[in-house]
Amino acid sequence: MTDTVKYLLDETHLPKYWYNLAADLPVAAPPVLHPGTMQPVGPNDLAPLFPMDLILQEVSTERDIPIPEPVREVYRQWRPSPLFRARRLEKLLQTPAKIYYKYEGVSPAGSHKPNTAVPQAFYNKQAGVKRLVTETGAGQWGSSLAFAGALYGLEVKVFMVRVSYDQKPYRRALMETYGATCVASPSNETQSGRALLAQRPDHPGSLGIAISEAVEVAAQNDDTKYALGSVLNHVLLHQTVVGQEAMAQMDMAGDYPDVIIACTGGGSNFAGLAFPFLGAQLRGGKKVRIVAVEPAACPSLTRGTYAYDFGDTAGLTPLTKMHTLGSTFIPPGFHAGGLRYHGMAPLVSHIKELGLIEAVAYEQIACFEAGVTFARAEGIVPAPESNHAVKGAIAEALKCKAEGKSRTILFNLSGHGHFDMQAYLDYFGGKLKDIQYAEADLATALAKLPQVKAA
Amino acid sequence: MTDTVKYLLDETHLPKYWYNLAADLPVAAPPVLHPGTMQPVGPNDLAPLFPMDLILQEVSTERDIPIPEPVREVYRQWRPSPLFRARRLEKLLQTPAKIYYKYEGVSPAGSHKPNTAVPQAFYNKQAGVKRLVTETGAGQWGSSLAFAGALYGLEVKVFMVRVSYDQKPYRRALMETYGATCVASPSNETQSGRALLAQRPDHPGSLGIAISEAVEVAAQNDDTKYALGSVLNHVLLHQTVVGQEAMAQMDMAGDYPDVIIACTGGGSNFAGLAFPFLGAQLRGGKKVRIVAVEPAACPSLTRGTYAYDFGDTAGLTPLTKMHTLGSTFIPPGFHAGGLRYHGMAPLVSHIKELGLIEAVAYEQIACFEAGVTFARAEGIVPAPESNHAVKGAIAEALKCKAEGKSRTILFNLSGHGHFDMQAYLDYFGGKLKDIQYAEADLATALAKLPQVKAA
Repeated sequence: MTDTVKYLLDETHLPKYWYNLAADLPVAAPPVLHPGTMQPVGPNDLAPLFPMDLILQEVSTERDIPIPEPVREVYRQWRPSPLFRARRLEKLLQTPAKIYYKYEGVSPAGSHKPNTAVPQAFYNKQAGVKRLVTETGAGQWGSSLAFAGALYGLEVKVFMVRVSYDQKPYRRALMETYGATCVASPSNETQSGRALLAQRPDHPGSLGIAISEAVEVAAQNDDTKYALGSVLNHVLLHQTVVGQEAMAQMDMAGDYPDVIIACTGGGSNFAGLAFPFLGAQLRGGKKVRIVAVEPAACPSLTRGTYAYDFGDTAGLTPLTKMHTLGSTFIPPGFHAGGLRYHGMAPLVSHIKELGLIEAVAYEQIACFEAGVTFARAEGIVPAPESNHAVKGAIAEALKCKAEGKSRTILFNLSGHGHFDMQAYLDYFGGKLKDIQYAEADLATALAKLPQVKAA
Repeated sequence: MTDTVKYLLDETHLPKYWYNLAADLPVAAPPVLHPGTMQPVGPNDLAPLFPMDLILQEVSTERDIPIPEPVREVYRQWRPSPLFRARRLEKLLQTPAKIYYKYEGVSPAGSHKPNTAVPQAFYNKQAGVKRLVTETGAGQWGSSLAFAGALYGLEVKVFMVRVSYDQKPYRRALMETYGATCVASPSNETQSGRALLAQRPDHPGSLGIAISEAVEVAAQNDDTKYALGSVLNHVLLHQTVVGQEAMAQMDMAGDYPDVIIACTGGGSNFAGLAFPFLGAQLRGGKKVRIVAVEPAACPSLTRGTYAYDFGDTAGLTPLTKMHTLGSTFIPPGFHAGGLRYHGMAPLVSHIKELGLIEAVAYEQIACFEAGVTFARAEGIVPAPESNHAVKGAIAEALKCKAEGKSRTILFNLSGHGHFDMQAYLDYFGGKLKDIQYAEADLATALAKLPQVKAA
């Protein structure tokens, strides 16, 4: 075999459980706090936003959480997803490294996001919810929830960050094709949106703002719940089907990763691939380097502060301890809209603090260059977010080449870029810039972090 | 199982041979004629355009043509492709019919076209060719050849029909991401293009014109060959991996189709699915209804004449006997650009004349309506071309419902619509029209058919 190799599991290998990293952590993650009382939140505090099944998953410390059979039936449409060995890319790079990638773009919505959209829609439907409301950046999450909503007959409303809404009209078209409604955020439909538009009518929006709008709508309507596409424990949990399958597929290949790489925005595709491997390590298995790759224009893990902060811009959510650029920080409008979030998943932040993972940040032009190299070798055009993982993997492979060492690299190709071709056109047309945030803006946002006394 | 069911073959079921229908035909198809001599063309007549391996496949009557192992290695990246039973769609339609679909959108370029692009690039590379030149309508073929060219280090130049070039800038972006160059046709780069632009500077183009431009460039350059994405025998041959896999998958499902449905532009996705089933029938197997679905705005099988005609508009190709609207007929600019071709594959035309298949034509709005219904049920957004097959399948399923009969329907979902979302936006925005051609234009084009005396 000299060509790209596919490792495909049959359906009997579709995981029966989600893997919960909380069961294996040497130190528990800090509690989530109520911003009014500064006391840990209980399940009832979250009940206006989420159905109880998801809340219980959010706080569970059980290692194996059963995947409901109806969810597994939907997963079967595209899962187990393929794992590829990128022989053509290895050859092009002339690297002694072995490069594997798990490909999540095979889902109907084109990314890993349906792995959590489907169970979230399922549990909400079970709880009698009529409508789900959410935010989206690049649109991968919004279109995934729209897809899941169509399956379960739930209305879906998506607040889409304005800069992405304008850049990617076809993502909106996809959501509408699935029957969802999509509005640009900040919008006039919420108090938090109107307040921002009053300050700045051409506000580019951010994930934090769109979350505020969605949470506001959910909190005010009894038949409506909120759904989040990343960050929260239960979202990361649902993504662990990715890493569990990858472990079985690496086994098929007779190999095991020395380094695992994924991009990080809120942290869910990263956690999905990495947590099962990390759990195995924590239970005495082989040590593996785990590298989170983030955008230099929104570098929460590499430049943020580890502190309690709001998940949204208006301060409507509970406080979580995480790496944050400050919930009032508005990241510049670069192309990987799915990574434009001020914070990082509390669980991912926690294991970063424990020294269990590394993080690195790259500029967007270098990521698109890596993505084009990958596309010409492997045939798959990555999403701009996934290009960060590709860049990380190529950097590791070239390090292997420089050192004359063969290491096994595994990365998560979290989605395809079919709805992001304007970004590629901009790249080829020389219109893409490496966008910097202003250090003063970051300092201002960090100065506004909520004051939380040690619990 | 109440949900959509996937039938996935492991790689040991990847076909080792392409299936050649010519071996099983009760009557041979009429010969291809040289337009100068009106005598059957020989292999050498085609040598300026194609490498000899492909020419020999074009004229072969062997039943099983071996697939080169390096081509099978590339196929393995996405083949065997999945077959689904559309349980969610069946439920939505409340039909007693069983609906299966073979999904070819899993290929890197998003359609069935890489099934032939890869072997065409392979054989050209083997023959020492440096550059491939081709035409594309909606862009599925152009991006597939661009993908295949990238794998083999071949330069690829694509003449893209102007109406599609303008409608689908992201298809061009995809071709460029793979490293190909793409120009709008008619262009100023060829004699045939310049002649048309002189008559009408805003000429919308057609597949026939783009073929003329590509053939002209190939004929004038020694290191350059021409590649065609449909119509020819060897192209249809390469697509038979689809039907062979589908036969094995229907067997997995313990079922066999009563009716097979696919859309027809040049005829290749249709032939790919149908020919292996038809071959089995011709060798004494079960009879199956086979339905070709074409656009009402370009209805070669249902409104065309069965006659010798050119494959291109400028009259640069040999003459083939086929159902044609006349090679000078310019179809109106509807959204399924891959179906905007004046003729039909000679083999498909021949079996239509033999009464072995049926044909039906639908307007585009009805096809988009079917596509949206399908997307909301099955999660996959079909290409506008594939929507014709979806429409055909839904029509058959509703007929089953009306008759209270359960029949097994199998259709080819030839590609996804991720690069066609403008068409969906137009549909939702009420901007899509059912476009008619002028009967006078059709009559004029048919009157210009070349005069060929009986051989």
